[in-house]
Amino acid sequence: MPILVVGSVALDDVETPFGQRKGALGGAAVYFGLAASYFTEVQLVGVVGRDFPAGHLELLSSRGIDLAGLQVVDGETFRWGGKYGYDFNARETTFTHLGAFAGFQPQIPERFRQTPNVFLANIHPRLQLDVLGQVERPQMTALDTMNYWIERTPEELREVLARVDALLINDSEARQLASEPVLRKAAARILELGPEMLVVKKGEDGAVTFSREGIFAVPGLPLDSIIDPTGAGDSFAGGFLGYLAASGDRSPEALRRATIYGSTMGSLCCEAFSTEKLVDLDPHEIEDRFQEYKRLTHFEHAPILLNA
Amino acid sequence: MPILVVGSVALDDVETPFGQRKGALGGAAVYFGLAASYFTEVQLVGVVGRDFPAGHLELLSSRGIDLAGLQVVDGETFRWGGKYGYDFNARETTFTHLGAFAGFQPQIPERFRQTPNVFLANIHPRLQLDVLGQVERPQMTALDTMNYWIERTPEELREVLARVDALLINDSEARQLASEPVLRKAAARILELGPEMLVVKKGEDGAVTFSREGIFAVPGLPLDSIIDPTGAGDSFAGGFLGYLAASGDRSPEALRRATIYGSTMGSLCCEAFSTEKLVDLDPHEIEDRFQEYKRLTHFEHAPILLNA
Repeated sequence: MPILVVGSVALDDVETPFGQRKGALGGAAVYFGLAASYFTEVQLVGVVGRDFPAGHLELLSSRGIDLAGLQVVDGETFRWGGKYGYDFNARETTFTHLGAFAGFQPQIPERFRQTPNVFLANIHPRLQLDVLGQVERPQMTALDTMNYWIERTPEELREVLARVDALLINDSEARQLASEPVLRKAAARILELGPEMLVVKKGEDGAVTFSREGIFAVPGLPLDSIIDPTGAGDSFAGGFLGYLAASGDRSPEALRRATIYGSTMGSLCCEAFSTEKLVDLDPHEIEDRFQEYKRLTHFEHAPILLNA
Repeated sequence: MPILVVGSVALDDVETPFGQRKGALGGAAVYFGLAASYFTEVQLVGVVGRDFPAGHLELLSSRGIDLAGLQVVDGETFRWGGKYGYDFNARETTFTHLGAFAGFQPQIPERFRQTPNVFLANIHPRLQLDVLGQVERPQMTALDTMNYWIERTPEELREVLARVDALLINDSEARQLASEPVLRKAAARILELGPEMLVVKKGEDGAVTFSREGIFAVPGLPLDSIIDPTGAGDSFAGGFLGYLAASGDRSPEALRRATIYGSTMGSLCCEAFSTEKLVDLDPHEIEDRFQEYKRLTHFEHAPILLNA
C-alpha cells in the first residue's frame, strides 16, 4: 500500500572530512521518499523554487515517486549547509535559507487523500495537523519532529501526537519531550500521549522501538566507511514505514523487522554523499544488509552453572 | 577455571540525582571480581590502607573471592569521588586520593602464578607488564586501560597489548588508541597490535566485540531505573571474562555469549548504588537478564518483494 510523505525538499551544501557537495539533492521528504521507494509506492508533498534542478525531479521520478504534490513556486528552494568533523554524531549547521519553504502550505492532491499511510516529516506541528485534516482516515500515520518544536510549540505538538500511530525521534528529543532522563520511562510517557509505537533513533548507536508489546533494540552497525550521515534519520524512517506500509503488518514481529529495515536504509545512506547511494540500490544490497544485522546481533544461550 | 584480577580497590564517594554514598566499596578489581564471582573462582591482587573496613573484606570473601593477594599497608586506601547529573554518560570526578595505591607494586602470590586466566584492570602499563612477568603462561590474558595511559605511556601500552588476548576499552579510547575515527577501522588496527578480541564498551549504548571471526554488537538495554553507573564497565569485564574462564570456550559463539553476560553484569550493576546489587545476586536474575537481551534483540526475516 502506498505512503504519502509531507516535508522538506532541499538543496544541501555538505562538507565532511572526505569531500564536499554543493546544491546536492536533500530534504527530509526526499531521503524518506527514496528509502521508502524500495518497499512501496511513494507520494511526495513539498515545495521547491524555480531554481530546483530538473535533473533532481527526474531522479525522484525514476524511483517511482509521485510528484503531483510538489509545488514549484517563485523564489528559491530551501537551502541547508552542514559540516561534519571526524565525530559524525556532531555536526555544524553552516546556514539555513528557508526560501520557498518558509511559506509552505501543504496541499494534498485529491488522489492522495485516501492514501492509507502518511508520514509527516519534521515541519511545524500546525502544518502537520493541517495535513491530517486533509487526508481521509489513513490506517497508519507517523510523525517526526525536533527540539525546536518541542520547545516552541508544545501544545500543537501534543495535539498532533494524540492523532498519530508512530513517532520517530532521536534520543535527546525523546527525553526532552517527556521531561524524563531515563529513556524507558520517557518512552512510556510518550506512548501515553497517543502513539502506539515510538522509535528512538541514536545515530551511530542504533535505534530502539517501544510499543505496548515491548521493546526492541538494534545496535549501530560498525560501517567500514562513513561518508556523509546527512539524511540517515529520514532514510531510517523511509525503511521503517516503507516496510510497514508494504507488508500491511503491525505485529510485534513486523515492528522488529521494520526497525531492521530502517537501520538498513539509514546505514546505506551514510555510505555515500547526499542521496547518491539511495537513488541506485539493488534490492539484494538491502536484503544483504538486513541479514548483516542478523549476523551482527544474534546469539544462542548455552547452559552454564552459575555460582550462587 | 579461576581468574586472577589485578587492579584498584577503593572507597568511593558517589553522588547521583537519586542519593549518595560515602566510603562505599569500589575500585576496578572489586567490581570485576564481584561480577566474575558468579561464573568462576576469583583471585584478587591489590592494595588497601589500614583504614579499609573489615566489613568490605568480609563481603568480598563471602563471594568466594580469594584475597591472599590483597596487600594491607600503612597509609590510606585509594579514595575516589564522582558526581552524576541526569546524563549518566557524563560524570564529574570530584576528587582522587591515590593513597596506598600510588605505590602499588603487584605481588602475585605463589599459588596464583599458574592461574589460567588473568585480567589486568586499568593501572600503569608498566605494572601490567610486571604482572605478566610474574604469571606462568596463562591461557587467557585481558587488559583494560584508559586515555591517560594511551597519551602518556604509548610505548609501554603497546608492549602489553602485544602480549594479551583481549582488550576491553570504551569507544573514544578505541578511536584514540588507533588514531582512527571510524570504529571498524580502529578495531582492525587494534587487533593488529596483538589482541585476538577487542571489546568496545559504549555505556548506555551497549558494546561491540571485534575478533578475527567477525563483529558482534549488543545494544544498550533500556533500564527502568539507573541508580549509579559507577563500575559498570568493570562489571561488564567481570561477566565477559568470567564466562570465558568458566566455559573454557573461545569460539565465536562463546564470544557472543560472553558479550551478553558482560552486558548483563554491567546493566545489573547500574541498578543500585556502588556494589550493592552485585554482592547479592541470585543466579536466576543473571539468567533472566541474559534472556531479556535475547528478547530485546532477536528478530526473524519474512520475505517481502522489494522494488528495484
